[in-house]
Amino acid sequence: MKIKVLKFGGTSVGSIEAIKRSADIIHDWSKKSKVIAVLSAMSGETDRLINLTKSFSKNPNPIDFDNAISSGENVSCALMSICLNNQKIKAKSLLSWQIPIITSSEHMKSRILSINKKFLYDELENFEVLLIPGFQGINNKGELTTLGRGGSDTSAVAVAAAMESECIIYTDVEGVFTTDPNIVPKAKKINKIAYEEMLELASQGAKVLQTRSVELAMRKNTKLSVRSSFKPKKIGTMITDEKSVLENNTVSGITYSKDEAKITLSRVQDKPGVSSKIFGPLAKGNINVDMILQNISQDGKFANLSFTLPRLDLEKALKILKKEKSIIGYKKIISSNNISKISVVGVGMRSHAGVAQTLFDTLGKNKINIQVITTSEIKISILIHEDQTDLAVQKLHQAFKLHK
Amino acid sequence: MKIKVLKFGGTSVGSIEAIKRSADIIHDWSKKSKVIAVLSAMSGETDRLINLTKSFSKNPNPIDFDNAISSGENVSCALMSICLNNQKIKAKSLLSWQIPIITSSEHMKSRILSINKKFLYDELENFEVLLIPGFQGINNKGELTTLGRGGSDTSAVAVAAAMESECIIYTDVEGVFTTDPNIVPKAKKINKIAYEEMLELASQGAKVLQTRSVELAMRKNTKLSVRSSFKPKKIGTMITDEKSVLENNTVSGITYSKDEAKITLSRVQDKPGVSSKIFGPLAKGNINVDMILQNISQDGKFANLSFTLPRLDLEKALKILKKEKSIIGYKKIISSNNISKISVVGVGMRSHAGVAQTLFDTLGKNKINIQVITTSEIKISILIHEDQTDLAVQKLHQAFKLHK
Repeated sequence: MKIKVLKFGGTSVGSIEAIKRSADIIHDWSKKSKVIAVLSAMSGETDRLINLTKSFSKNPNPIDFDNAISSGENVSCALMSICLNNQKIKAKSLLSWQIPIITSSEHMKSRILSINKKFLYDELENFEVLLIPGFQGINNKGELTTLGRGGSDTSAVAVAAAMESECIIYTDVEGVFTTDPNIVPKAKKINKIAYEEMLELASQGAKVLQTRSVELAMRKNTKLSVRSSFKPKKIGTMITDEKSVLENNTVSGITYSKDEAKITLSRVQDKPGVSSKIFGPLAKGNINVDMILQNISQDGKFANLSFTLPRLDLEKALKILKKEKSIIGYKKIISSNNISKISVVGVGMRSHAGVAQTLFDTLGKNKINIQVITTSEIKISILIHEDQTDLAVQKLHQAFKLHK
Repeated sequence: MKIKVLKFGGTSVGSIEAIKRSADIIHDWSKKSKVIAVLSAMSGETDRLINLTKSFSKNPNPIDFDNAISSGENVSCALMSICLNNQKIKAKSLLSWQIPIITSSEHMKSRILSINKKFLYDELENFEVLLIPGFQGINNKGELTTLGRGGSDTSAVAVAAAMESECIIYTDVEGVFTTDPNIVPKAKKINKIAYEEMLELASQGAKVLQTRSVELAMRKNTKLSVRSSFKPKKIGTMITDEKSVLENNTVSGITYSKDEAKITLSRVQDKPGVSSKIFGPLAKGNINVDMILQNISQDGKFANLSFTLPRLDLEKALKILKKEKSIIGYKKIISSNNISKISVVGVGMRSHAGVAQTLFDTLGKNKINIQVITTSEIKISILIHEDQTDLAVQKLHQAFKLHK
């Protein structure tokens, strides 16, 4: 049995017209194979439901919260099935407990553990198209669970992995670009990208796919691609294993994030255990620290320690660190929130030297000062002044010849 | 274990304020007993969902239709539970498939077959309040089903019957009145009414309770009452068995319906099989015929046949009957849509003669012409000109001393 798994995001089912447009895409695929479409809630619906819960409690109890916010996807599936049946396509909407999609026990951020593929194969004997609500499942206590924001991408990849099929994510962009076309109009759509690169790009702000869905596709080696439901004829971006990425550019893409802040603690004692005194309380406060940099001072006894964090958390972090001052034992605390982070990503970096050199040269020539650098096997990230973000991205895009 | 089953309709959960007000009622009851509250969707929500389905098909397929329109009740339950938990009441929202509530197999007008009361008793060991979505269940194929408009009343009575508990329906009126207070300002709230009377009143337009819920309560002898969620301190109307209705009035109430039309077929052959030629095609067209009257003509061979039907269906019915003219064999077709129906209801009629006489006298004195009469054991219904509806209801209310 030939099966395609498609996923349509909120804007692709966000109105009657959008549903009809996406139904045409499903219709087309159904001529060639059986189709399972995983749908999001109509755009805005999940936020509406979340806001309703917040009217009653800042901390809604998890079981009820999941029951409240999971209804939008079921409505999308039912409407899509009605639309398809009206076009004489044998379609059926399913609910996650009917299949079932089994998740871990926790609520609001559950993980998919298994999908009963026999149920889906049986239904596909009688139907050309099945519609499955994304973002949810049931746990072993028989409670409804949700997967966290963007969870529908993960639902789709999990269904594709279970059915050993390809997964195509239809969204409101044409694919993954070498960088943000708003900053670099010449930015190019990437035709093929390695899972690892996509992970670095997505978590850095490419915002096309939920990170967990890419991790899952990588683990299960599921063929994954992104397309626009508004321009379905256009080839999007295929996310695949490194071997399959033929056009193995040294650098695949450049991302940036302006939502960064930096904190520096001066004259921290340079001895074991200090780091945990700093980062322990921050972790407890649910603050994600990103880049960390430590310079030993001249006398060798003290260090200056800098790290970055989301700008939104800056005030909270400062409050925590000031409270812990006597325990940590630093001299001064300095913060800045006018910085941004730029990352250059590419699996080709592994075998090609000189990426860092090109980066330093380009920024130097353009008088852009680098405040912090971190590197990994396939990524170099730098911290610069926020005002220079656009210039830096434009010049780096040119230097790495990404518009070609 | 002491248990109360409460039901809150759409307007009683129709806004954040309404949910909070109804939560206070639940809170009060929970001090005295365990509470199971059956909830409707927020007012307007089910219509919104139905309209969405209609954007895609005039005849949506039943499985998908039920999946689409059943989500509103789940949201109400989750929000109510969040609201109660925020007040430190141990509450939990349930989904119909978790219990489960088992229904007959058909969709969009399913009947409840059974409710797993063991599941509910077990949950009540751990929670003070359970919230159950009305209007829905699952069938033996594991599909979600809905019970038809107003089905949440039936859900509540079914839960109360299963738990052998009382059922209190909270709605936006204070109870059942002797007649419409908009027409007769002196109309009185009825404190106790027999199931049979309530059935006649409800199906004739009292619109307080779904007819099926009253039938079910009567069959299971479930104590049922109606109260206002806006004025919860006021005693409403209790619907109970005939024996318990102490104030056994001859007439309990008067209802009217202005949504009526009448069709007369002249010179229909007076022989067996003709009725089915008339009413068969109408039934196929989903037209509910109500009162039927047949007068044999002078020569004894032909009859004039009149019947009433919902005004909305008049055009459709005329079209059907004109198409069937040669098969039925009538001479003329006459219709009127400016008529209304008035019903006088009371279990006391069984033992008290003279109700019909009072009715005729009253209408005669006020020059109100009766077009059609039908009677049952506890009801007399008449058809009059629409313009005289208010006058007739007012004079009859007075004649039967219902304001006392």
